[in-house]
Amino acid sequence: MAIVTIVGAGFMGTATAWPLTDNGHTVRLVGTHLDREIIQSCQNRRFHPTLQRELPPGVRPYPVEEVAEALHGAEIVVGGVNSSGVHWLAATVGPHLTPGQMLIAITKGLETDAHGDLAILPDVLKAELPATIRERVPLAAIGGPCIAGELAGRRQTCVVFGSRDSEAVERLAVAFRTPYYHVWTTTDLVGLEYCAALKNAYTVGVALAYGALEKSGGADAAGAHMHNLAAALFGQACTEMARLLEVAGATRAFAFGLPGAGDLFVTCVGGRTIRLGTLLGKGHSMRDARARLAGLTLEGAEIIGSMAQAIPRLVAQGRLGAAELPLLRLLVDVVVHGRPADVLLEPFFGGTASA
Amino acid sequence: MAIVTIVGAGFMGTATAWPLTDNGHTVRLVGTHLDREIIQSCQNRRFHPTLQRELPPGVRPYPVEEVAEALHGAEIVVGGVNSSGVHWLAATVGPHLTPGQMLIAITKGLETDAHGDLAILPDVLKAELPATIRERVPLAAIGGPCIAGELAGRRQTCVVFGSRDSEAVERLAVAFRTPYYHVWTTTDLVGLEYCAALKNAYTVGVALAYGALEKSGGADAAGAHMHNLAAALFGQACTEMARLLEVAGATRAFAFGLPGAGDLFVTCVGGRTIRLGTLLGKGHSMRDARARLAGLTLEGAEIIGSMAQAIPRLVAQGRLGAAELPLLRLLVDVVVHGRPADVLLEPFFGGTASA
Repeated sequence: MAIVTIVGAGFMGTATAWPLTDNGHTVRLVGTHLDREIIQSCQNRRFHPTLQRELPPGVRPYPVEEVAEALHGAEIVVGGVNSSGVHWLAATVGPHLTPGQMLIAITKGLETDAHGDLAILPDVLKAELPATIRERVPLAAIGGPCIAGELAGRRQTCVVFGSRDSEAVERLAVAFRTPYYHVWTTTDLVGLEYCAALKNAYTVGVALAYGALEKSGGADAAGAHMHNLAAALFGQACTEMARLLEVAGATRAFAFGLPGAGDLFVTCVGGRTIRLGTLLGKGHSMRDARARLAGLTLEGAEIIGSMAQAIPRLVAQGRLGAAELPLLRLLVDVVVHGRPADVLLEPFFGGTASA
Repeated sequence: MAIVTIVGAGFMGTATAWPLTDNGHTVRLVGTHLDREIIQSCQNRRFHPTLQRELPPGVRPYPVEEVAEALHGAEIVVGGVNSSGVHWLAATVGPHLTPGQMLIAITKGLETDAHGDLAILPDVLKAELPATIRERVPLAAIGGPCIAGELAGRRQTCVVFGSRDSEAVERLAVAFRTPYYHVWTTTDLVGLEYCAALKNAYTVGVALAYGALEKSGGADAAGAHMHNLAAALFGQACTEMARLLEVAGATRAFAFGLPGAGDLFVTCVGGRTIRLGTLLGKGHSMRDARARLAGLTLEGAEIIGSMAQAIPRLVAQGRLGAAELPLLRLLVDVVVHGRPADVLLEPFFGGTASA
């Protein structure tokens, strides 16, 4: 049995404490500076206020000031911050890492460098670790459909762990697997992270249909919703994910497996990301939507922002056609350029349908 | 402008009258012997009782006895019966068809012959048409996500028309396309029909999660549902559809486009097929579920029945591995063999996850 240190006490980071403690590991849960109230509640009442659950025995909460102590002797470090916290994570955790510790991130995102080239967050994280340790700590990430509250409720959950280090990813999978937490593994870390990030962007796209429905006044007198439109957006989203995986030289089949269609499905039916797309589809500007959702991490909008830089770069490199990815381009127009969310369906699916 | 005769006055057949009449076509709507009350209501009040909508002007209702008159002079015939009505359709419509009429079916299904080989319904239909006309009537079918009530409500809808006759399918698309009914075309009729049929089977699979949730007493005290499980089943469903398309030599990309992931999504979030899977997932036997759903066409169960015969045939032919399609095999066990719906997740996605 190992010591596992989770850095970041939000929903998803904390939820991994359930399978880990069920497997007999000792878990140290370190809050960031944003998690002070959570850690205080965990220390005083052993209750996680956003997950609304009592912490499992075997979890010890730590404030951020004690991160060095919490990392000491840990075999596995779980990076439990969201995409905007990845630089903080590298700066905070990096100096205390020791060779052979494994780092697995739940962070989902894609960043662009100064040229507009896409980088997956595990690589961003790695680049910011101290040079002395960078190549000596195997890095892994988690993809696939997982609502944190369900994992903490020990509901059946299927995920994919990815790492370029095939031995490390198998060891990590063994450490986490329980009868309710099913872990597949892949060495295609790039493909896994593309899906994990893109599904947040495309959920905004699917949710445009829910917003359009609200804008129209809801279901009509005969009870018609706009599921047909949502489903068309869903199919186009999977198709564009498949194309982006292909462009990246990654596993195209992820588009119709757990990391792509599976994770997109769970985010559309059970996640919080649909709120942004619903507001935009209803006719709110991005500026207005952002104000209404103050306090919520808009990971979908961040990914769309990265893709706004990446698309022209991919076109300039000849890797993507000028008219490809019409749904993602629409999302860029709406989220980055503040244009109205008028969905033009004809260019979808290769553009063969004309009205 | 053309005369279009819809045979079958149920939900989906009748719903095509909206784009057709909006395009200025004259529509004749023929009820089957099961549609007597519908046709009477359409004749007396111009109101379709199951769609809960007034018929558009330009639609003339016909009882089944007048089918010959209704077919006379029609350019396009819409086969609007469900999968169990396809033999009736061939026998009823066949004798009255004339060369050059185009027949487009909304019927979704797969049948097996005496050997267990799969046949798509347009081919079953074709084989039962009179020999003199069989090769002189282009056959087409409709796939993709389309809830009939939304089409009749002129909600945005994206579908795929398929026919081996590339010229006929383009002419049909032109006849149906409106600013809200977007039609893509394909000559891969087999792939399109596989998806249209299989999505009904796999919706039963996804809905097992909803039944498992009900069985467990619903959301837990912290609000956790079973979306993670539903999403894993959804991803596995798309993965198995991709594999079956590959085995059939059809377009694998349909699995993550409109005909596969798109149509599965709409059926899972807005269709009636989830009721069967929910009952089975809750622990009801197939016999019991069938009794509770009396009156509902269980197209998912019919497809699963066909696949029960097809799977061993494909394995015997060396086209499918003995352990492939674990979700479809589970559905066969539950629906055909009456076994309990215990979902074993480890064999999914190539079987690399072991607890």
